[in-house]
Amino acid sequence: MNFFKNPELFRASQNPPDLRKLLTPERIASFQTEAVGLRLLYATERVTDTIMQALFNLAQDREVVSHMKAMQAGERVNSIHGYESENRPALHTAMRDVFDSAQHPPIVQAAIDLAKKEIEKLKTFLADVEDFTDIVQIGIGGSSLGPEAIYLGLEVYAINGRRAHFISNVDPDETTKVLGRLDLSKTLIIVVSKSGSTLETVTNEMLAREKLKDAGLNPKDHLIAVTGKGSPMDDPAKYRASFYIWDYIGGRYSVTSMVGGVMLAFALGIETYLDFLRGAHEMDLAALESNPEKNLPLTGALLGIWNRNFLNLPTVAIIPYAQALARFPAHLQQLDMESNGKHINKEGQVVDYNTGPIIWGEPGTNGQHSFFQMIHQGTTIVPLEIIGFKETQYGEDLLVQGSYSQEKLLSNLFAQAIALAQGQENANPNKVFKGNRPSSILLAQKLDPFTMGKLLAYYEHKVVFQGFIWNINSFDQEGVQLGKKLATEMIKTFTEIRDGENPSYQLGKAYIKQLE
Amino acid sequence: MNFFKNPELFRASQNPPDLRKLLTPERIASFQTEAVGLRLLYATERVTDTIMQALFNLAQDREVVSHMKAMQAGERVNSIHGYESENRPALHTAMRDVFDSAQHPPIVQAAIDLAKKEIEKLKTFLADVEDFTDIVQIGIGGSSLGPEAIYLGLEVYAINGRRAHFISNVDPDETTKVLGRLDLSKTLIIVVSKSGSTLETVTNEMLAREKLKDAGLNPKDHLIAVTGKGSPMDDPAKYRASFYIWDYIGGRYSVTSMVGGVMLAFALGIETYLDFLRGAHEMDLAALESNPEKNLPLTGALLGIWNRNFLNLPTVAIIPYAQALARFPAHLQQLDMESNGKHINKEGQVVDYNTGPIIWGEPGTNGQHSFFQMIHQGTTIVPLEIIGFKETQYGEDLLVQGSYSQEKLLSNLFAQAIALAQGQENANPNKVFKGNRPSSILLAQKLDPFTMGKLLAYYEHKVVFQGFIWNINSFDQEGVQLGKKLATEMIKTFTEIRDGENPSYQLGKAYIKQLE
Repeated sequence: MNFFKNPELFRASQNPPDLRKLLTPERIASFQTEAVGLRLLYATERVTDTIMQALFNLAQDREVVSHMKAMQAGERVNSIHGYESENRPALHTAMRDVFDSAQHPPIVQAAIDLAKKEIEKLKTFLADVEDFTDIVQIGIGGSSLGPEAIYLGLEVYAINGRRAHFISNVDPDETTKVLGRLDLSKTLIIVVSKSGSTLETVTNEMLAREKLKDAGLNPKDHLIAVTGKGSPMDDPAKYRASFYIWDYIGGRYSVTSMVGGVMLAFALGIETYLDFLRGAHEMDLAALESNPEKNLPLTGALLGIWNRNFLNLPTVAIIPYAQALARFPAHLQQLDMESNGKHINKEGQVVDYNTGPIIWGEPGTNGQHSFFQMIHQGTTIVPLEIIGFKETQYGEDLLVQGSYSQEKLLSNLFAQAIALAQGQENANPNKVFKGNRPSSILLAQKLDPFTMGKLLAYYEHKVVFQGFIWNINSFDQEGVQLGKKLATEMIKTFTEIRDGENPSYQLGKAYIKQLE
Repeated sequence: MNFFKNPELFRASQNPPDLRKLLTPERIASFQTEAVGLRLLYATERVTDTIMQALFNLAQDREVVSHMKAMQAGERVNSIHGYESENRPALHTAMRDVFDSAQHPPIVQAAIDLAKKEIEKLKTFLADVEDFTDIVQIGIGGSSLGPEAIYLGLEVYAINGRRAHFISNVDPDETTKVLGRLDLSKTLIIVVSKSGSTLETVTNEMLAREKLKDAGLNPKDHLIAVTGKGSPMDDPAKYRASFYIWDYIGGRYSVTSMVGGVMLAFALGIETYLDFLRGAHEMDLAALESNPEKNLPLTGALLGIWNRNFLNLPTVAIIPYAQALARFPAHLQQLDMESNGKHINKEGQVVDYNTGPIIWGEPGTNGQHSFFQMIHQGTTIVPLEIIGFKETQYGEDLLVQGSYSQEKLLSNLFAQAIALAQGQENANPNKVFKGNRPSSILLAQKLDPFTMGKLLAYYEHKVVFQGFIWNINSFDQEGVQLGKKLATEMIKTFTEIRDGENPSYQLGKAYIKQLE
């Protein structure tokens, strides 16, 4: 059954509402949803009350809030029925359910208890490393993008004199550059890999150990492990401290676990980290709201489904009007595309509808001076997800030409949504804007730790809700395996050539020849 | 006339070649073009010899190399016929044509002479600021993305103790954060705006002037202007030094002018900057090659046309396997999308074919651990433009588990192209890769200043060639104007509300109310 042959929505999509005429103050006031201090404004999406109702009905039919409850209750949502799969729960919400004493199923309670234990270990650890100034996180994908995005988002809260740095790429120049700038005697290096065998991370750990030795230091005094129990990295003899993650925490959902926690708590302070968890936990509860119309991440998910499956828009641009969120789109790119870039459903059948779109984006107003030309006048329509805050983080601002910078920033934010929706007629065809280009705006008071947590969890749940609607497994990543397998072949071929042997992998040999 | 109703190409696109069977060492060796040390490998694009020949014929029919010659000869390529338009040449190639004494039309010679004069001024300036350590570039869009991408690309060449920093966003937190970290007494601040009135840049300059005063410094001793003659910023009384740009240099094509030049020469040294120009100039000459089959940027452009207009792929992902190029995709995003995200042709008619795609990307191997799941198994096909180098920049590498990091990096690069093309069959549907996902690989020896210049110019010309094929104006950006106009309305509305007046702009009022 194809859920996207919904006749009501399909009919509506053939003649979507004309925003050029519809956008009014009343529409702005009425097309919105608010929860836990975040407000989603969607007057500039190409929807009507009738369409929204049909989308909410779709969510009811697909029982997505029940699926969310099941996920948070520890059901094995990471599975493909009838085929070999990871077949396990996704319990990232348990990582931040450490504040109240609600009743939980045993599997969830066990995960919460383990998470609490790591937080206690973290507090002890922080007291032990007070003399260090810098922390380098070696990790890739989920062990890098989310933690870095959150660190940059909250860097204003950094403990005086402390900085975090990140090494991901197997490109050796990255390690040389990052470590070359630091006083290694005052630097901690966290190595993050759930499997303990990620090629890039293991290699960069070796490079870091060499650099520490070259500096006359004992690597063990500086290295911290964040890994799964029993992994090759689970070896306290080699690390100053070790923290655990578990197989029910997917990499891209791991920011609130020790994958993000050790670095964030060291650089920003334990209270900032805990406030961030509190915010995420609040949004976790909001995602359980049974009435779809009041469920904030579900409403965001449904608007995305409308744009992707009914208006057939292939991409989504995330535009945060806050420079601190510069790398948040890169985290969401992984979160969304790795979760929902899938071609089979949970029964292993090839889907006949589109799943996860291409996610990309840069901060506003920067993007306006870059790719927004194409957003306004290009031949492919790009829906925007705009994020904005009423207040600055640093509290420093200046009246220039009669207005504050923060007012200029927010003015641009709102102006883009209006311009894209309304368009403009003109006798000069080059000054014509067709309008009807959709966007939504997510507003909050200020980008503080609490709000950062809510924002992170909002997107985690939006992505998961879309996965439930598409009936796909948002928690595995089989699509990365083939590339890994062939990379191993290629590495072997490089080694064979270096050793003067004749490699058997002909395609590999042919490509390496191109480097001559 | 619609150029994309080419019957031969259209027919071929209905049944494109099956890469799963076609990829052989012979194909790798034969599907490639090389020029000035860059090699474009396209065995993993869905083309045949016949398709390539038809694309080269399309380029001949569209006389695109003649257009390129005309552009470099100073013709008014920035125009829309029959309508008011900027109506001027695009002479970014003149900015780096400062090394030999070839004959040029007077308009080009005049531009070259002016460029040479600025380079001489720059040399004098550098001798005057030897005591400074840091340089902050305030600018947005073309005044920021390109310069920052090139600076990061070549940071390994930085003069010992010198660093560059960038402020773009009108978000006041950015200025606070960047300037808060620096010893302002040793910091130069370049303000870059051709018009001298860019909202973000003018505002951030004021913030910077205040910070300098607060630190007890005279702003004039630290501020440098890069602007157009006669602009509001063309006021030597307010700046320690001033450099010029001209209306024939578009922002996104301005990296090789003083927009990038002052910062690059200060931070990396004048010789590095000049080598970068030399590389760009070499590629400018290569773009004039009359035989399309031997014209490197034109070949790249045609592969893009095939993917966009015949295989109907809406996006292009740029994946540099070099962490130093981390921000190069962001520059190309502007360069390409602002140039070719257009809906009318050069006669002012609405086009009935697709123009510029959505450009996005992150470095490999990082992307492999992020969005590559979707690239391999998602429902929308994403062509990749992969960039790689044989050698590292720092020359430091380590043998870990039998191979060097650089070998691992290149192994992953080639493995991805092969995996995407070949795919994989499997009894488990979740382990099936459909293959036939296109990519190309651009290879060079090492990311040195010379190569960086070639790479920049390669993409400038690829974009311009595509614009010529689409018959659009790749040099204006009318699509940003409506947003600017409405932002001015919104700023006025903010001010009126702050002053207790009742604003007339009802939509603005309605949005500002949402912040309460």
